[in-house]
Amino acid sequence: MANEPCVDFTTHPDRYKHWQLAIDGRIATLAMNVQEDAPLRPGYELKLNSYDLGVDIELYDAVQRLRFEHPEVATVVLTSARPRVFCAGANIRMLAQCSYTHKIHFCRFTNETRHGIEDATAHSGQIYLCAINGTAAGGGYELALACEYIILIDDGTSAVSLPEVALIAVLPGTGGLTRLVDKRHVRHDHADFFCTTSEGMRGQRAVNWKLVDELVPSSRFDEAVRQRAKAFAAKSDRPSDATGITLSPLARTLDADRIRYEQVSIDIDRHLATATFTVHAPRELPAQTPEAIHAAGVSFWPLALARQLDDAILHLRLNESDIGTWVFRSTGEHAWVEAVDTVLCTYADDWLVREITLYLKRTLQRLDVSARSLIALVEPGSCFTGTLLELVLAADRSYMLDGTFAESTLPAATMRLSPLNFGPLPMVHGITRLQRRFPGTPEHIAQLQKYMGKDLAAQDAEALGLVTFIPDDIDWEDEVRLALEERTSFSPDALTGMEACLRFAGPETLESKTFGRLSAWQNWIFQRPNAIGENGALTLYGTGKKSLFDKRRI
Amino acid sequence: MANEPCVDFTTHPDRYKHWQLAIDGRIATLAMNVQEDAPLRPGYELKLNSYDLGVDIELYDAVQRLRFEHPEVATVVLTSARPRVFCAGANIRMLAQCSYTHKIHFCRFTNETRHGIEDATAHSGQIYLCAINGTAAGGGYELALACEYIILIDDGTSAVSLPEVALIAVLPGTGGLTRLVDKRHVRHDHADFFCTTSEGMRGQRAVNWKLVDELVPSSRFDEAVRQRAKAFAAKSDRPSDATGITLSPLARTLDADRIRYEQVSIDIDRHLATATFTVHAPRELPAQTPEAIHAAGVSFWPLALARQLDDAILHLRLNESDIGTWVFRSTGEHAWVEAVDTVLCTYADDWLVREITLYLKRTLQRLDVSARSLIALVEPGSCFTGTLLELVLAADRSYMLDGTFAESTLPAATMRLSPLNFGPLPMVHGITRLQRRFPGTPEHIAQLQKYMGKDLAAQDAEALGLVTFIPDDIDWEDEVRLALEERTSFSPDALTGMEACLRFAGPETLESKTFGRLSAWQNWIFQRPNAIGENGALTLYGTGKKSLFDKRRI
Repeated sequence: MANEPCVDFTTHPDRYKHWQLAIDGRIATLAMNVQEDAPLRPGYELKLNSYDLGVDIELYDAVQRLRFEHPEVATVVLTSARPRVFCAGANIRMLAQCSYTHKIHFCRFTNETRHGIEDATAHSGQIYLCAINGTAAGGGYELALACEYIILIDDGTSAVSLPEVALIAVLPGTGGLTRLVDKRHVRHDHADFFCTTSEGMRGQRAVNWKLVDELVPSSRFDEAVRQRAKAFAAKSDRPSDATGITLSPLARTLDADRIRYEQVSIDIDRHLATATFTVHAPRELPAQTPEAIHAAGVSFWPLALARQLDDAILHLRLNESDIGTWVFRSTGEHAWVEAVDTVLCTYADDWLVREITLYLKRTLQRLDVSARSLIALVEPGSCFTGTLLELVLAADRSYMLDGTFAESTLPAATMRLSPLNFGPLPMVHGITRLQRRFPGTPEHIAQLQKYMGKDLAAQDAEALGLVTFIPDDIDWEDEVRLALEERTSFSPDALTGMEACLRFAGPETLESKTFGRLSAWQNWIFQRPNAIGENGALTLYGTGKKSLFDKRRI
Repeated sequence: MANEPCVDFTTHPDRYKHWQLAIDGRIATLAMNVQEDAPLRPGYELKLNSYDLGVDIELYDAVQRLRFEHPEVATVVLTSARPRVFCAGANIRMLAQCSYTHKIHFCRFTNETRHGIEDATAHSGQIYLCAINGTAAGGGYELALACEYIILIDDGTSAVSLPEVALIAVLPGTGGLTRLVDKRHVRHDHADFFCTTSEGMRGQRAVNWKLVDELVPSSRFDEAVRQRAKAFAAKSDRPSDATGITLSPLARTLDADRIRYEQVSIDIDRHLATATFTVHAPRELPAQTPEAIHAAGVSFWPLALARQLDDAILHLRLNESDIGTWVFRSTGEHAWVEAVDTVLCTYADDWLVREITLYLKRTLQRLDVSARSLIALVEPGSCFTGTLLELVLAADRSYMLDGTFAESTLPAATMRLSPLNFGPLPMVHGITRLQRRFPGTPEHIAQLQKYMGKDLAAQDAEALGLVTFIPDDIDWEDEVRLALEERTSFSPDALTGMEACLRFAGPETLESKTFGRLSAWQNWIFQRPNAIGENGALTLYGTGKKSLFDKRRI
C-alpha cells in the first residue's frame, strides 16, 4: 500500500464542498467556490479558488452527473462563485509538499477530467462555456482552455495567465501548453511570451492572441454569458424532454487484498505485485430496448461495468502504486455480452446509450494511460466479446489457453469480435485498438470484420493476430507465472516509459500529446532540483527566497 | 563552460578509428570496427563494437561524406567488420559514468544521425541496407532499425535485441521503440515481449514479427547482401556518372567567448547566458548554374552556411550547456540571399543542389530540437530572406526594429519570403515553419505566397504575423535586454519542457515522436534512482549485484 491515506473517488453533490451546481432548463452553471479549510490532506489552505485532488474529484463527479442525470442540459457554464477570482490553479503548497507520486497521479486525473469536459462538448452535445469572472491563473486558465468558448470579464484587472514557468519552474501541467497551440491555434511565439509572463494578459490583446474568445465589460457580463449559453444550447442535440438516470452510490467492498463490485472483482497479489480484475458478463439477457435501458439505469450492465472499472482503476492507480501489473480475466456468457453490444449499436442515437458507450470509451482510455503493465488471460469460461475484448486488445500482452484445462470440464476458450471493436471505443490518439494493433494494414481490419460474431478459438485468434501467445494446458501455468514474475522484476520507470512509447503507434491527438509529450516533460521537471530541490522554485515559492538554478540546458 | 572537455564534431575518414568505408561503384560498405581502447574519454573500453559519442561522430561524418562526396553511391550497406558481432549498442559503462547532461546530448546526437540515415534513404536516393552479421543489441539493433532493409545472418546464434529495460532499467533511447511500432509496424504486444526479452530474437520468428526483413544462412549471406544492395541501387535516382565535391575542413577559430566561421560568427555573453549568431549573406552574387555550383563546392554559400551552422550548433549544445539562449542576427544583402534561394529552387533536381537543400533542412531541424531558447533580432542591415528567414520563423520569439536607429544611416530593416519558406525546409514533424506558425489557416499561407520577393518592413511583417514584436528605436534596447535577462532568470528545465511543447504544434512524425515522446521519457528515466541511483540498474550493471527498485508506478 502507498504511504499516503486512501483516497476515495466517489462523491455526491450533497457532499460537495467546492462546487455549486445549478440547473436552469437547458443551461447548467457549475461554479467553483473552494472551501479554503477543506483540503484533501492537512497542511495547506485552498486560497483563491486553488484546487487539489479533492476539488477535482468533485469536478469529475459533477461532469459525470451532468451527462447522465441531466439529459436536458445542453450548455454548462463553468464559472466561479467568488468575486474577482475565477481560479488560481493547482494549490502550490500542496504541489510542493506532496509526494512525487501524488503529483503525477494528480496531474493525470485532472488531465482526464479536462479531456472528459471536451468529450462532453464534442460528443454529448453538452457544451462547456467558460465565464471567467476574475483572475484565471495556471490550472485555472487551463480549466478554461478545456471549454469550447471562453468569455473574459473586462474589469481592468481580471487576466488569464500561465505563470508556472516563471514562478515555480514547472510546466502548466494540465494540457495548457498543448491546448494553446494545438486547440486554440495561438501562435507559438505569442504562446512563448504569454507562458513566460507571470502577470498574464487581459483586454483586447487576450482576444487578438486567441487566448480568450470574447471580452465583456462587467456591466454586461452575466447577460452576455447567458446569451452565449443559449446560443450554444440551440446547437446541441441533447433532448430537452428526457429524464436522466440517477448515478446512485456504487456498491463496493474494500478489503486489504480484495475489492468487490457487482460485475468486477479485484484480487491483489502483493508478492507478484499484480491486481487481477475478473469481469463478470451480464448474468441474464440485458435490457433490449431504450425504455428498458432507461428503466434499468445504473444497473444496466455496460454502465455498471464502466462505473466499476472506472472506480477500480482510479483506486488502484492512486492507492496501490506498488501494484505494477494489472491482469484481466472474464467470466460468463459470450452471448449476453454480445447482446449488450448489439443493443448499444442499435440504439446508438439514444442519448443514454450514447453516454454509456462514451463512458466505456473513456474508461478504456483511462486504462491505456494508467502507467501499469496490462496482461490479459483468456481462459475457459471467459467471455471476451466486443467491449470486453477491448481489454484483451488494450493489454500489453495476452495469453489464451489453447484447449482445455485437464482438471476442468469447461470447454476451450473463445473470443468474439463485435461492432464495438471497430469504431466506437477509440484510444486517446483517435484510432481503435485494432487499428493500433495492425497499423498500415486496413485490409486486415476489413478482413476481421467478416469474423464478427464468430467464436474464435485460440488458434483462430492467434492466426488473426488477436492474442499474443496460446500456450496449452501443459505450459499455461508456468508461462503465465514466469511472465508475471519477470514483469515485477523490472524497473517500474523503464516499464512506464516503454509502454508509453509502444502503446500509441499511429497518429497523435491533443489528448495523446498531453499524456505523451507534455506529461512526460512534466514528470521529468517534477524530478529536477531546479523545481523540487532545496533551492528549487517550487520548494521556495512564497518564502521570499530566490531560487538558485543549475543553468545547464540539457 | 561545461566541466567536461570540449568535444570536436569534425573529423575525416583518414582519422576514423571505428569505421571502415569502402566504395565499389554504386555500393558503399560502411563497416563498424570499433577500436576498444579509443573511447572519447578515458574510463571505459569499447568492447564488442559498442559505441560512444566519438564513434557516432565518425558515423555522422561518414553519412555526410557519402551524400556529398559520393553521388555515385546508391546503396550503403551498414555492417560490422567483426565476426559474430554486429554492434552491442551504446557502451553501458560510458552511460553509467558520464554526466546526466552528456547522456542527453549523446542520445540527441545519435538520434539525429539515425534520422539523417533515413533522410538519405528517403530523399537522396542513398538507400541504407543493414547486414547484421552478428549480434545486434540495444543501440546496435536501433542502428539497424534506421535502415530501409534489415538482413539478419542465420547462424544459430546471431540475434537482434533491445535488452535495455531488462538489463539497465532505461529505454532503448535512439528511436528503437518508436521505430518498431511506427516504422516497421511490429505489433505492440510483440514489441512488448521483444523489448523485455534480453536475449532478443533470431530465426524465423524475427522475420515473422517484422523485426528483420530477411534471414540468410551464413554461407549465402555476403552474396545475398550484395544482391539486395544491387536491387536497391537499381531503384535509386543517384547519378552514376557524377563527381562529388570534397567536404574540406571547416575554417574555424575558437576563442573563449567568440567562434568565427566564414559566414557565421558567434559571440557569447556569459552574464546574459546568450550566444549571438551573426549570419553573413553571400558577399557577392553566388553561383548561378549547376556547373558553377559544383565548381564552387563547399564554398557555395548555402552549403558553407549549413556546415558552419551545423558545427556551431553541435559545439554550443554540448560544450556550452550553460548558454541557454541563442540569438540570431544577420547582415548583408537580401538580393544575394534571394539569388541563392532562386538557384536552389531552379536546379532542385541537380543531385548536389538537392543535397544542399536537404542539409539546410536538417540543420534547421537540429536547431528546433536543441533545447535552447531561440530569439531572432531583425535590425537595419539584416537580410532575413527565405532560407535565413527560417531562423526568424524558428525562433521562440522575434523582435524587428520598426524604423531606423538614431545613430545609424542604415535604412529600416525588411524581410523577404522566398519559395524556400513554403516547402523544402520542413520541421521534424513534417510541416513548414509557416504552417506551424499559422495552424488551421492554409488561406493565410496562400496569402503569404503572394508576398514572395517583396520587401516587408516591420509593420508589414507584424501585420502578416511574421514577427512577434516591433519596438521602435526608443524601446528597442530595453525591450530586447529585458527579454534576454528574463529568459536567463528562468529554470532551464522548465524552458526546455515548455519550448518542446509549444514548438511542435500540428501533426507528429516518427522523428518528432522520437524527440518529443521517447526522449522525454528517457530524460525522465535517466534521472530516476531505479536507473542511476546507488542501487540502480545502470549503476550496478556488470557488478553482479542486484538492483533494488522502488516499485511504485507513477
